[in-house]
Amino acid sequence: MLKLFYSPNSCALASHIALAEAGAPYETVRLDFARNEQRQPEYLAVNPKGRVPALITEHGILTESPAILVYIAQCFPQAGLAPLDDPFAFAQLQSFNSYLCSTVHVAHAHRMRGYRWVDDEAALAAMKRKVPQTVGEAFRLIEQKMFKGPWVLGERYSIADPYLFTMATWLEGDGIDMATLPVIREHRNRVAARPAVRKALAQQGVTPPPA
Amino acid sequence: MLKLFYSPNSCALASHIALAEAGAPYETVRLDFARNEQRQPEYLAVNPKGRVPALITEHGILTESPAILVYIAQCFPQAGLAPLDDPFAFAQLQSFNSYLCSTVHVAHAHRMRGYRWVDDEAALAAMKRKVPQTVGEAFRLIEQKMFKGPWVLGERYSIADPYLFTMATWLEGDGIDMATLPVIREHRNRVAARPAVRKALAQQGVTPPPA
Repeated sequence: MLKLFYSPNSCALASHIALAEAGAPYETVRLDFARNEQRQPEYLAVNPKGRVPALITEHGILTESPAILVYIAQCFPQAGLAPLDDPFAFAQLQSFNSYLCSTVHVAHAHRMRGYRWVDDEAALAAMKRKVPQTVGEAFRLIEQKMFKGPWVLGERYSIADPYLFTMATWLEGDGIDMATLPVIREHRNRVAARPAVRKALAQQGVTPPPA
Repeated sequence: MLKLFYSPNSCALASHIALAEAGAPYETVRLDFARNEQRQPEYLAVNPKGRVPALITEHGILTESPAILVYIAQCFPQAGLAPLDDPFAFAQLQSFNSYLCSTVHVAHAHRMRGYRWVDDEAALAAMKRKVPQTVGEAFRLIEQKMFKGPWVLGERYSIADPYLFTMATWLEGDGIDMATLPVIREHRNRVAARPAVRKALAQQGVTPPPA
């Protein structure tokens, strides 16, 4: 039985959806960030980074969304969640997910978690001000240059889709007008309609994004 | 023939070293960031993100270090640069590389590239001030909790090693006293002594880090 640690509205939703898509046997553990549970000794023993997601497997603990997503795809190959037999296609998938974790998620994090990189209030405010621009630019690049459609990689749904979907659920909060991202909005609706996604959202008690 | 776009002292060094370790046929193209060559139309046609590395392959163009590194390991399996037949070990490798790209590199980037996330000078200065702390904390976590030794994953050298090495060459510039990171320093020396690493550094005209 796989065990996923998550907090609602975090990037752990992508791994949660992937588990549901894969038909994996799993259970979830909810952490309340408002109560700082991710910084308590019990959880730091699981993940010393104090972040989610963390996945407990029979072999040990895994962290970092791109790694967990590929692990799920490899452990449940019948679900077809990644092009595992084509190194170039797999690299394109990895490139997309890497952009999400290192650029998109980071741009978003400057709104609520700027204290990671600065200490003073004025600098935190300066960070927040630029989030609509940086997040908007990153999503426009995805929409115009990276997204193939109807899914991220083209005809085949993959672990890149719930990962993109997860970050797209943050867009309104980041000050983005979804009317400026019609491809991303359609994709978000397409993903939200999938049974595995509805299941994961319901298990986390999270409302699906607006259509 | 693979073609790697790089700039000296950037994270593209990791992919460059991996190509050399793999015994891959490759050539390199140097971009001068001081002349903003990564933002010229010729290069944006290669990589619309305006970043390095980018790897031109016979199948198309790849970007993002974690994706390129795994692609090289998969295309040249005889080099043994990744545990390709063990999903959990592979996930641990991916988790490590993901931490490097999304946390370590990002912490470092707040010193010289803070303009990505803020516009005003005072906020840029606030970002620079915290870099020694954030980069130092990330490397201490690697040293104390993630690094197995003598290589990142243990007895087996992998694509995680040149990637860690590359970021470790930035440490003095980030205000870190290497005496506080003895494991990282030893690893950096161990990697620097490898023929493939010396070759890549020489090809880039980059001085090896101090011992």
